[in-house]
Amino acid sequence: MAALSSLDELIAALRCLPGVGPRSAQRMAYHLLQRDRAGAARLARATERALAALRHCARCNMFSEEELCSRCANPRRDASRLCVVETPSDLAMIEQTRSYDGLYYVLMGRLSPLDGIGPRELGLERLIARADDGQVREVILATNFTNEGEATAITLASLFAARGLTVSRLSRGVPVGGELEYSDIGTVAQALAERRTLS
Amino acid sequence: MAALSSLDELIAALRCLPGVGPRSAQRMAYHLLQRDRAGAARLARATERALAALRHCARCNMFSEEELCSRCANPRRDASRLCVVETPSDLAMIEQTRSYDGLYYVLMGRLSPLDGIGPRELGLERLIARADDGQVREVILATNFTNEGEATAITLASLFAARGLTVSRLSRGVPVGGELEYSDIGTVAQALAERRTLS
Repeated sequence: MAALSSLDELIAALRCLPGVGPRSAQRMAYHLLQRDRAGAARLARATERALAALRHCARCNMFSEEELCSRCANPRRDASRLCVVETPSDLAMIEQTRSYDGLYYVLMGRLSPLDGIGPRELGLERLIARADDGQVREVILATNFTNEGEATAITLASLFAARGLTVSRLSRGVPVGGELEYSDIGTVAQALAERRTLS
Repeated sequence: MAALSSLDELIAALRCLPGVGPRSAQRMAYHLLQRDRAGAARLARATERALAALRHCARCNMFSEEELCSRCANPRRDASRLCVVETPSDLAMIEQTRSYDGLYYVLMGRLSPLDGIGPRELGLERLIARADDGQVREVILATNFTNEGEATAITLASLFAARGLTVSRLSRGVPVGGELEYSDIGTVAQALAERRTLS
C-alpha cells in the first residue's frame, strides 16, 4: 500500500485536534483547501512557530516564549498570592474575570491515581519549591470541582498548611461536578471573590 | 502593539477551521502544545504538503495530486454515468455507499443568486463540456435537497435534457431540507438506488 495521499494525510492529521472525528476532519480539510488556503497556510506556520518557540515558564509552568512568562515577570502583580490551576484554559478563565492580580501555577493536569498520575508524575515538588519562595503567603486552590480536582486540592491543602501557608479554595459557586473552562465568567468571578480559607 | 505571541497566533490561526470558535481554538492550542506535539507537527506538515500538492482534477474538479484523479483515470469505472455533487464531502458520502461505480463532477458550490453565484461563477460551462464528451449518457444530479441545491438541479436538468442526455435525481429518501453530508449511509444508498429519471 502506498503512503497516504496528501489529502488523506491532512484529514488524518486534523484528527489530532480534540473533539474532531473523521467527518469533522474531512469537512475541515475540504474547507481549508477550497475556501481558505491563506488560513491553512497561516495555521501551518503558526503551529510550527508555536512548537519551536513555546516552552514552560520556569515559575508558573504556563506556556511561554521566555524563561519567565510576562505575568511572572510583571512586578505589579501581587507575588504574595499563588493561584494553582489544572490547565492553561483555567488560567485564561480566571484572567478574564479581571478580579485577580496575583500569580499562578499551572499543574498541567491533576492527581489521578487510577491513571497512574501521582504527586511525582504531576511534579508537585516543583510547585512546593515555587510556593516556598518566601514571598507567597496564600495559595489559592483553583482546581476543578470534579472528584479528581477535589482530591488534588485536598492533597495540596495539607501540603501547604504543613508549611504554614494560608490555603484557600474557590467558593463552590462553580457547579459541583462542573469544570471551570465551561463556566460563565461571572460565576468564576464570584467563586474567586468568595474563596474560603481551608487552613 | 507588538505582533501576536506565538501562542495567541496559533489560537487565532485555529479559528480558520470551520465551526471552531475562540474557546475551542484555545483548547485545541493547549492540547496540541501540551499533549500532542507530534500530532501538531504532523498537522503543520500535512497542511503544507496538501497546499502544495493538491489541485483540481481536470475532469471531475475534485482535489487531486495528478492532472486526472484516480477515479477519473480508472478504466473500470462506468464512464456513461456522471454524478454531479456540490462538495467533496458529498462525493465521499456517495463513494461510501459502495453502490455507484460511475464518475463524478464536483461543483464546489451551488447556484445561489442572492450570493452572486450564478452559472458563470459556478463554472457550469466546464461541467457541460465534461458531459459532452460523447461517453456520458446519464447525468445523476446529487445536489442537496435544500432550496439552493434543488434550484441547481432544476437548472442542470434543463441544460442536460436540451443536450439529449438522460437526467436523473437522487430519490427523496434524503430528508427534505437536509444535506447529504449529515445523512446516514443507508439513506443515501437508498436514494441512489431509487433515483428517478427527470427527462
